[in-house]
Amino acid sequence: MTHVHKQLTLADIARQLDATLVGSGELPIRGLATLKDAGPDQVAFLANRAYFKDLATTRAGAVLLHPEHGKTCPVPRLELDNPYLGYARLSQLFDPVPARDRTGIHPSAVVAESVQLGAGVCIGAQAVVEDGVMLGDNVVVGAGSVVGADSMIGEGTRLHANVTVCHGVAIGKRAILHSGCVIGGDGFGFAHDGVAWHKIAQLGGVVLGDDVEVGSCSSIDRGALGDTVIGNDVKIDSQVQIAHNVCIGDHTALAGCVGIAGSTKVGKHCMLGGGVGLSGHLTICDGVQVTGMSLVTNSIHAPGVYSSGTGAMPNQQWRKNAVRFKQLDDIAKRLSRLEKSQRRD
Amino acid sequence: MTHVHKQLTLADIARQLDATLVGSGELPIRGLATLKDAGPDQVAFLANRAYFKDLATTRAGAVLLHPEHGKTCPVPRLELDNPYLGYARLSQLFDPVPARDRTGIHPSAVVAESVQLGAGVCIGAQAVVEDGVMLGDNVVVGAGSVVGADSMIGEGTRLHANVTVCHGVAIGKRAILHSGCVIGGDGFGFAHDGVAWHKIAQLGGVVLGDDVEVGSCSSIDRGALGDTVIGNDVKIDSQVQIAHNVCIGDHTALAGCVGIAGSTKVGKHCMLGGGVGLSGHLTICDGVQVTGMSLVTNSIHAPGVYSSGTGAMPNQQWRKNAVRFKQLDDIAKRLSRLEKSQRRD
Amino acid sequence: MTHVHKQLTLADIARQLDATLVGSGELPIRGLATLKDAGPDQVAFLANRAYFKDLATTRAGAVLLHPEHGKTCPVPRLELDNPYLGYARLSQLFDPVPARDRTGIHPSAVVAESVQLGAGVCIGAQAVVEDGVMLGDNVVVGAGSVVGADSMIGEGTRLHANVTVCHGVAIGKRAILHSGCVIGGDGFGFAHDGVAWHKIAQLGGVVLGDDVEVGSCSSIDRGALGDTVIGNDVKIDSQVQIAHNVCIGDHTALAGCVGIAGSTKVGKHCMLGGGVGLSGHLTICDGVQVTGMSLVTNSIHAPGVYSSGTGAMPNQQWRKNAVRFKQLDDIAKRLSRLEKSQRRD
Repeated sequence: MTHVHKQLTLADIARQLDATLVGSGELPIRGLATLKDAGPDQVAFLANRAYFKDLATTRAGAVLLHPEHGKTCPVPRLELDNPYLGYARLSQLFDPVPARDRTGIHPSAVVAESVQLGAGVCIGAQAVVEDGVMLGDNVVVGAGSVVGADSMIGEGTRLHANVTVCHGVAIGKRAILHSGCVIGGDGFGFAHDGVAWHKIAQLGGVVLGDDVEVGSCSSIDRGALGDTVIGNDVKIDSQVQIAHNVCIGDHTALAGCVGIAGSTKVGKHCMLGGGVGLSGHLTICDGVQVTGMSLVTNSIHAPGVYSSGTGAMPNQQWRKNAVRFKQLDDIAKRLSRLEKSQRRD
Repeated sequence: MTHVHKQLTLADIARQLDATLVGSGELPIRGLATLKDAGPDQVAFLANRAYFKDLATTRAGAVLLHPEHGKTCPVPRLELDNPYLGYARLSQLFDPVPARDRTGIHPSAVVAESVQLGAGVCIGAQAVVEDGVMLGDNVVVGAGSVVGADSMIGEGTRLHANVTVCHGVAIGKRAILHSGCVIGGDGFGFAHDGVAWHKIAQLGGVVLGDDVEVGSCSSIDRGALGDTVIGNDVKIDSQVQIAHNVCIGDHTALAGCVGIAGSTKVGKHCMLGGGVGLSGHLTICDGVQVTGMSLVTNSIHAPGVYSSGTGAMPNQQWRKNAVRFKQLDDIAKRLSRLEKSQRRD
Repeated sequence: MTHVHKQLTLADIARQLDATLVGSGELPIRGLATLKDAGPDQVAFLANRAYFKDLATTRAGAVLLHPEHGKTCPVPRLELDNPYLGYARLSQLFDPVPARDRTGIHPSAVVAESVQLGAGVCIGAQAVVEDGVMLGDNVVVGAGSVVGADSMIGEGTRLHANVTVCHGVAIGKRAILHSGCVIGGDGFGFAHDGVAWHKIAQLGGVVLGDDVEVGSCSSIDRGALGDTVIGNDVKIDSQVQIAHNVCIGDHTALAGCVGIAGSTKVGKHCMLGGGVGLSGHLTICDGVQVTGMSLVTNSIHAPGVYSSGTGAMPNQQWRKNAVRFKQLDDIAKRLSRLEKSQRRD
């Protein structure tokens, strides 16, 4: 657990969450926890009916919940129409990370003279910011991170430790880049001369919108000619690979280990499950959900949920079925033959 | 090959491996190799019957093997009941890495004043150790690695170069973290307001047990409220993603490219093959093995081997079968119809 | 987009591409773009018939194309038999990256005294080069990169920012390593004593040939005893995992998220699609192509295209079929029974 030293009154919290407080506003709150684990100085929340059973016995100082559960709450409460959203806001109030930021440039950091710095910028130990970079107000560059030449980072964006932003990348406002991620590495482009490969210099960049989050060790490659474009409020988990010239629409979420091949366009409000793969040059329309580890090899033109693959089963059973899969076309043909002959009878 | 300058006598090795030496103990040994490749100053080993054929002709200075093969060995030998385990111990005797560690803090490293350092700690060039960190005896922090505020690292643990340990992470003793791995990046948690995503601050941490190994470029995300917990002696390969609040039992091994979604619990002594995916909120019991690239979407309550998917085949054959897969339900229904009609005859 | 300040005349370009110029050679060219987007100071190219429709209306200063399309070109042209290869060469002429290299060692870099440096070497800010390393002429070590002890890097090789080359790694000439990649982390090797794992020290190295490219966040593990070997002109995309003692033949290309398990040998001129997995100890012959996300569990002895898995479909349809997959062996048996009984009639 991280140590949270902050303290707020229940009234402060109600105000900041725009929630209806029922109970004493004086109560000092030092954090949040589940209904089960919360103590008298913590706020708990009920956002999922599965945990309703824990409400009656909670020791929390207060509970964040929907008005419909108000009466059954044994302790002071914060009523909200969307308690899960309330939990998100509450969690941010107790986030210890921003409190640790130290405005200014750490003496060990290397920042080129030509860099333009906004107000309140924090550049951490051993970080490198190269020529021609523009950092907006309150940008945080974590320890060991590198920002390549001519890149622009919008106000309030945070690079955690050991992030790499390559040259000529544009990142919007309030983005969060986690450790080990790489924005703007070369796309995978080569011409073949019959024997050997010849590199196609990747002259495009990467454009990340506002409120984008990129997880640990994820990579977003730069475009070949045009840019790779990530829309606003796109959320990208860890170990994700986004190839050159991909475009991703606003508010789309990609879970861990997703891989998207070159020039594919993903719409707005899509959700790709963990390990999903999209082939190159596809168009996926708005509002598409793809379940975990599915392979998409054709464009999708209708919103909805899509899947591929087969769920795990005991290995012995699986072996028999997997062998039959290789006979599937034959099985289908034999079945048709039987049907025909039967009609003849 | 890395250069190994160390020299031991065969007698030294027998003593350290607790093996029965048959032959002269004076023999100087400078390394180890396979039965085929080993020279007179190297020890070879026979741990797999497949290589028995190479025993008669080996040029090795000595061979590590099971007593049952002793008589057929043409050179001095080290007899052990578990020769593969003996090979593991032997390999550690000739590991060149520890010899390169230089106790102390490299002048280019940035170590906060409040850091507590055990005896024999080595902190490499350009490394960063932030406020409130505790490093146990003989901890090694590799070049360019960053240890975030308030993290604790147990004695004898090694961070290779360019590792990132985020804030509030607890790592046990004798752990090994390989380059590019990230421990404690944010889990993937957001609340949706109907249009946009709102970040849920990830207030939990990560707890790694003793003797844990994490491979290159792997990521273990911090918990949302509680911690992500990795048990003792858990071995994690490269390119693995472990999401927030996952728990992994002692002695479990995860091969490369495994992805485990949020809040899933994996038991003890499990083995997940390369590229395996586990959905979120599952419980996998002790002693489960999952074969490569299988997708597990339901909890598993019985030990054993589990699989999914279909093996590769020539593309033309595959196309026909893959098309039939989409008709599979129809095929099954038509088959039942035929069976019924036949019974009627 | 990255800013390209370079200017060449059309005649210069024709000379460097060894193309036949038709039109005025004086024309100043500042970059390249697609037929649709190119302006009067840019060269466009026609390498794919799909874009032939854009030729008539292009505003490009000149077009790179095959002689067969020469007559229909409304602007000056550069004729070449392989226009796509021409595009690759042209792109390199306008690559802004090399122009930014600054020969010498950045004052913040840490370079061991014993390091041997070729002519024109560039070592970036916060980089670390350890004892016994040899860097060939014009090697570039990017900001924050670490080169481990006793490694050798051939002339003209570029490490981008935050790359990790571990100890005892040999890299050929003109290789390109992208940010976040790790060459030479430990392979995944352990001996089991019945309860716990015992580490097998990974004493081998990694050998990369000439003209190899490794993408962002990819990892190539070092060998257990012998080396992991990557041939010449092997192209590796982002998020790829190559396990210990794998050998990859010349001119083979691995797309993003590929995973190759230990000791597998891949031939020359192979192409593995995104997310492909190869089990350990396999042999894949020359000229094999494997389509995206396929799992290969057996050796392949004939060149050709191989696939596995099933494409995505609407989830409702998929659920029915996936359930039937688990009955596939039963379905096949019932079908045979029907066939037999019918013959009896």
